[in-house]
Amino acid sequence: MAESTNMRLRLPLLCIILEVILIILFGTLVEYNDDTHAMLWNENRTDSATRNDHENEFYYRYPSFQDVHVMIFVGFGFLMTFLQRYGFSSVGFNFLIAAFSLQWATLMQGFFHGLHHGKIHVGVTSMINADFCTGSVLISFGAVLGKTSPVQLLVMAIFEVTLFAVNEFILLSILGINDAGGSMTIHTFGAYFGLMVTRVLYRPNLDKSKHRNSSVYHSDLFAMIGTIYLWMFWPSFNSAITNYGDPQHRTAMNTYYSLAACTLATFAFSALVNPEGKLDMVHIQNAALAGGVAVGTAGEMMLTAFGAMIVGFLAGTISVLGYKYLTPVLESKLKIQDTCGIHNLHGMPGVLGAVVGAVTAALASPDVYGHGLQRVFADVETGKWNPQSRGGFQAISLAVTLGMALFGGLITGFILKLPIYGAPPDTHCFEDGLYWEVKTFHKLKL
Amino acid sequence: MAESTNMRLRLPLLCIILEVILIILFGTLVEYNDDTHAMLWNENRTDSATRNDHENEFYYRYPSFQDVHVMIFVGFGFLMTFLQRYGFSSVGFNFLIAAFSLQWATLMQGFFHGLHHGKIHVGVTSMINADFCTGSVLISFGAVLGKTSPVQLLVMAIFEVTLFAVNEFILLSILGINDAGGSMTIHTFGAYFGLMVTRVLYRPNLDKSKHRNSSVYHSDLFAMIGTIYLWMFWPSFNSAITNYGDPQHRTAMNTYYSLAACTLATFAFSALVNPEGKLDMVHIQNAALAGGVAVGTAGEMMLTAFGAMIVGFLAGTISVLGYKYLTPVLESKLKIQDTCGIHNLHGMPGVLGAVVGAVTAALASPDVYGHGLQRVFADVETGKWNPQSRGGFQAISLAVTLGMALFGGLITGFILKLPIYGAPPDTHCFEDGLYWEVKTFHKLKL
Amino acid sequence: MAESTNMRLRLPLLCIILEVILIILFGTLVEYNDDTHAMLWNENRTDSATRNDHENEFYYRYPSFQDVHVMIFVGFGFLMTFLQRYGFSSVGFNFLIAAFSLQWATLMQGFFHGLHHGKIHVGVTSMINADFCTGSVLISFGAVLGKTSPVQLLVMAIFEVTLFAVNEFILLSILGINDAGGSMTIHTFGAYFGLMVTRVLYRPNLDKSKHRNSSVYHSDLFAMIGTIYLWMFWPSFNSAITNYGDPQHRTAMNTYYSLAACTLATFAFSALVNPEGKLDMVHIQNAALAGGVAVGTAGEMMLTAFGAMIVGFLAGTISVLGYKYLTPVLESKLKIQDTCGIHNLHGMPGVLGAVVGAVTAALASPDVYGHGLQRVFADVETGKWNPQSRGGFQAISLAVTLGMALFGGLITGFILKLPIYGAPPDTHCFEDGLYWEVKTFHKLKL
Repeated sequence: MAESTNMRLRLPLLCIILEVILIILFGTLVEYNDDTHAMLWNENRTDSATRNDHENEFYYRYPSFQDVHVMIFVGFGFLMTFLQRYGFSSVGFNFLIAAFSLQWATLMQGFFHGLHHGKIHVGVTSMINADFCTGSVLISFGAVLGKTSPVQLLVMAIFEVTLFAVNEFILLSILGINDAGGSMTIHTFGAYFGLMVTRVLYRPNLDKSKHRNSSVYHSDLFAMIGTIYLWMFWPSFNSAITNYGDPQHRTAMNTYYSLAACTLATFAFSALVNPEGKLDMVHIQNAALAGGVAVGTAGEMMLTAFGAMIVGFLAGTISVLGYKYLTPVLESKLKIQDTCGIHNLHGMPGVLGAVVGAVTAALASPDVYGHGLQRVFADVETGKWNPQSRGGFQAISLAVTLGMALFGGLITGFILKLPIYGAPPDTHCFEDGLYWEVKTFHKLKL
Repeated sequence: MAESTNMRLRLPLLCIILEVILIILFGTLVEYNDDTHAMLWNENRTDSATRNDHENEFYYRYPSFQDVHVMIFVGFGFLMTFLQRYGFSSVGFNFLIAAFSLQWATLMQGFFHGLHHGKIHVGVTSMINADFCTGSVLISFGAVLGKTSPVQLLVMAIFEVTLFAVNEFILLSILGINDAGGSMTIHTFGAYFGLMVTRVLYRPNLDKSKHRNSSVYHSDLFAMIGTIYLWMFWPSFNSAITNYGDPQHRTAMNTYYSLAACTLATFAFSALVNPEGKLDMVHIQNAALAGGVAVGTAGEMMLTAFGAMIVGFLAGTISVLGYKYLTPVLESKLKIQDTCGIHNLHGMPGVLGAVVGAVTAALASPDVYGHGLQRVFADVETGKWNPQSRGGFQAISLAVTLGMALFGGLITGFILKLPIYGAPPDTHCFEDGLYWEVKTFHKLKL
Repeated sequence: MAESTNMRLRLPLLCIILEVILIILFGTLVEYNDDTHAMLWNENRTDSATRNDHENEFYYRYPSFQDVHVMIFVGFGFLMTFLQRYGFSSVGFNFLIAAFSLQWATLMQGFFHGLHHGKIHVGVTSMINADFCTGSVLISFGAVLGKTSPVQLLVMAIFEVTLFAVNEFILLSILGINDAGGSMTIHTFGAYFGLMVTRVLYRPNLDKSKHRNSSVYHSDLFAMIGTIYLWMFWPSFNSAITNYGDPQHRTAMNTYYSLAACTLATFAFSALVNPEGKLDMVHIQNAALAGGVAVGTAGEMMLTAFGAMIVGFLAGTISVLGYKYLTPVLESKLKIQDTCGIHNLHGMPGVLGAVVGAVTAALASPDVYGHGLQRVFADVETGKWNPQSRGGFQAISLAVTLGMALFGGLITGFILKLPIYGAPPDTHCFEDGLYWEVKTFHKLKL
């Protein structure tokens, strides 16, 4: 066993090759955009006062970027530390695949979002988008957590980032739909991609590692660090790439109220489904976040705080019920071993978010939005706008996303099944000691 | 006992009823404000270029809001994880009552701060104010930590938020005083309200749970996460709703220096009051923050870094001395069981902050403030300004706040004393296992 | 022994005396700057509309300041909690010496950076600079971690802050070089200062405390909190005091890419240097950050993402190799006991950053920067600009910094060697119990 999971050559080789390829591609394809390039930003400075440093997009996007960045690295990373013997891998592999994915995503998204004379232009908005795409990979990571080697995870990231960019291109550029907070592009895609991967990688004998597939007291507290950071900064996540002004402001506020309502639903149903009325940390850590997922599409629209709270309440409810009743069935009947329960946190709430987005878009009208309509729905300006067809395109996008995610996950799952990546044996899943120096583990007797 | 603390019906019912009421009230009363409404924000766009997206209050308030948000959920939540067996409840119930309180506070504050044609207008400023009010509830939570059920805490929040809004209305709208960082409205109010509640809920046999009313090594480190986040972001807290420009900038800086001086005082006195000269984590975790509380009122004034440092030094000193000498007396003589020592962190420093604010306001003059005087003291513009009476009103506000807090805490305490909320028995205080699934607790032997 | 390390008089006396001196000096020397002073900021308000509150530097610097602040207090503080029995001291003494250093740095930097009619003007930029200087002290703290009393650390901070300000003055004001992210002023200076101090304080019998000079499972997770926060906010660190507009935006982005590439290199080489291919938490916690250090000078220049990634990859590589092969040699041959391995994280990457900065500056040309050249290189405007000599001055600055750091560390080391500070005996290094009340330590059996 020690042989088969030895990473000494595999991991360094893959990391170095990938990084060298990234560096070469960045060297040939990537350029500063107008806001980051010394010449381009300043070229009209001496001529007129029209361009003011204070208008650089940095000042309007960077605080949101940093909040998103915290969600990706601290939020996702620590949320997954709930396992008793898998904290190093949770936060460490999260770190590794996120650092890779954001570079690869910059290239893939840049390629699909439109080249400028054959070059990819980068700035804070591309950084946010790259972090978004990375989030999708980390969602899938949650499904296979504890059952995959870092090499497998990097290979998964290569494919998932690529398909994410294709799906995002179809939705945003071809279908022209709205999904600022990524209910579809990020959450639904990442969830169903990951669920399909874990289905293909099904381990019939995973119960040999069952005793490690649970939390201990302090690991649950570390996980709460992740939860709380995701919860607090979700308003920034959903609003990070909306248009400036009222849409950004509104999105943040809708998300804030959705999450608050979701939290009360989570506590309510967590106690209700337990025979002794005791709260379950798994629910609090995860389901309380579903409200952020579920307003990812409609958050920038005139959903109202009222609407956001209803959506959040529903999201928290289905998420807890999913953890309690659906996850065991998915495992026993469909052979889907979903370590973090991403189907409950990202899958179902993502679909709910897509549906809410479609309905809210279909109900949009100039009576409610006024001149703001074109700030939210870009096709108003082109004259092609029609609320019903708009809602229809939103719904189609959900179907496209589900198809892309399931098909992509299927292919990727089979690629990851090759016995060359040093995957952990069934007896040693959820175990840091396989890939990390854990000198003093036995002393702690955890 | 298991029966009496079973939350299976009580907690879900209360959460669901409260959230349904909130949703209905939001549906009937709450509207987007000018900066979040698609139509209102954009209504003059086509007419003129006067309204620029970059001037949306989002860009000037939201970073402060996020810092405050971190203080509420991570700061307060983790600060209270110091107890060895109460980490889930500390961060979890903090999460629950904060998520409820911010919604309820939006309504209560909106109602008192001025309706617009019968509607409450919301945006980032109302979000900050709701988080502020929530902070007050969480301060009170610190006094009763470990001795109350989540149902009791939600009931406490209902009353405390309401009274907070009334007191805030009297101070800010009727008396027209300054309290941007809430030395009075948040800290003094929250502290004395909580102290009175815990007085009414006095448990003569609490020493049956004494062995759990202390920290272990790692729980103290989790608590330091809370402390450090509160400390770092306190400049954002005190400056979050001041006027734009110099007042906001100055408030953040005054708070920064006050906290730095407070930290040195805390370390000094913590070592001094210990026979072996050893530092006490309780002091570091709490007293080092008193400097932020104590410049909550005067921070926006021309206090100077010099003045802020003196105030911070005093605050740290009285806070450590309070923990060492006053808290035991409060418990033995006045029967006030104050788990977190909120009297030392929020009570006395809050009163100090109110006094400092009154003195600084009474010393204000156009010689020092120039045209900036009206940016800090709103009544300058109305012509009613007089520094001495201004200082007097500040002092009166402290008395009003103390009266409201003590009276409100008294009533609320008696309501919470009803034997219907599933409060923990004296033998099982400070114990997560009562309300949470804690499967592996015995294994850890904490 | 208990006698010799008793802090009861030493620590309080030093803290109180220092704070009183600081308060007096602030009272006589420090004033609000134009952006924080009520009169100065508003003096032209009634005359014209030229000064808009939205242009207050607060809105363009404060979010960066808060990110830097988090790095100083959470990042450095928790990064050092990796030791199994030294978490209180790591985060606690970090807190103490940072709170002192930022006040002292305000005075020292204000004195050297230019007095205004004999007064030091403070605002958010001085706060960032004070935090930067504090960072340098905390780097040095990493070298002596576990082997020094808090009194020693405060004395070290007094000298180091002073010399930091002198060195910074020579580099930025006399030589006029670029070092926005402090590869030289902060990292190289702090590292070699600390290494020299620990050299002078060499303990031949330190292996008596060897069993405590390592991590346990949970202490490594606490340390990862520090790592991840440093990693995420490093883009803000490097860009915090650059010019507005494209330089700030570009610096953040270059740092983002450098860190991402560095992370892949770190994982690659950590696995490669281990016989079983297992990852080492020490490398992940530290070396993954070297990419931020190494673009501290060149980050604001037109380094390109391509260049930043190469630099980051190199930095991660040398840092891991340093931990594996150089640190043991430094200890056995040169008698440098470097607890945190700051030579690998700050020393070598800092020097690399200085070299990269010199080369990038020497390659700068109007063809690439356009009118933006003068935004990055201040001497363009004065007409004295010449890229080659510019590169030369950058290189000279590295030599000056190394000289100042080593000389300063030597002197300070000998001062710290006096037997009056209550330093821990060789048998009780890396032990919280010496300076902290740790009641329940034995129960945990860590």
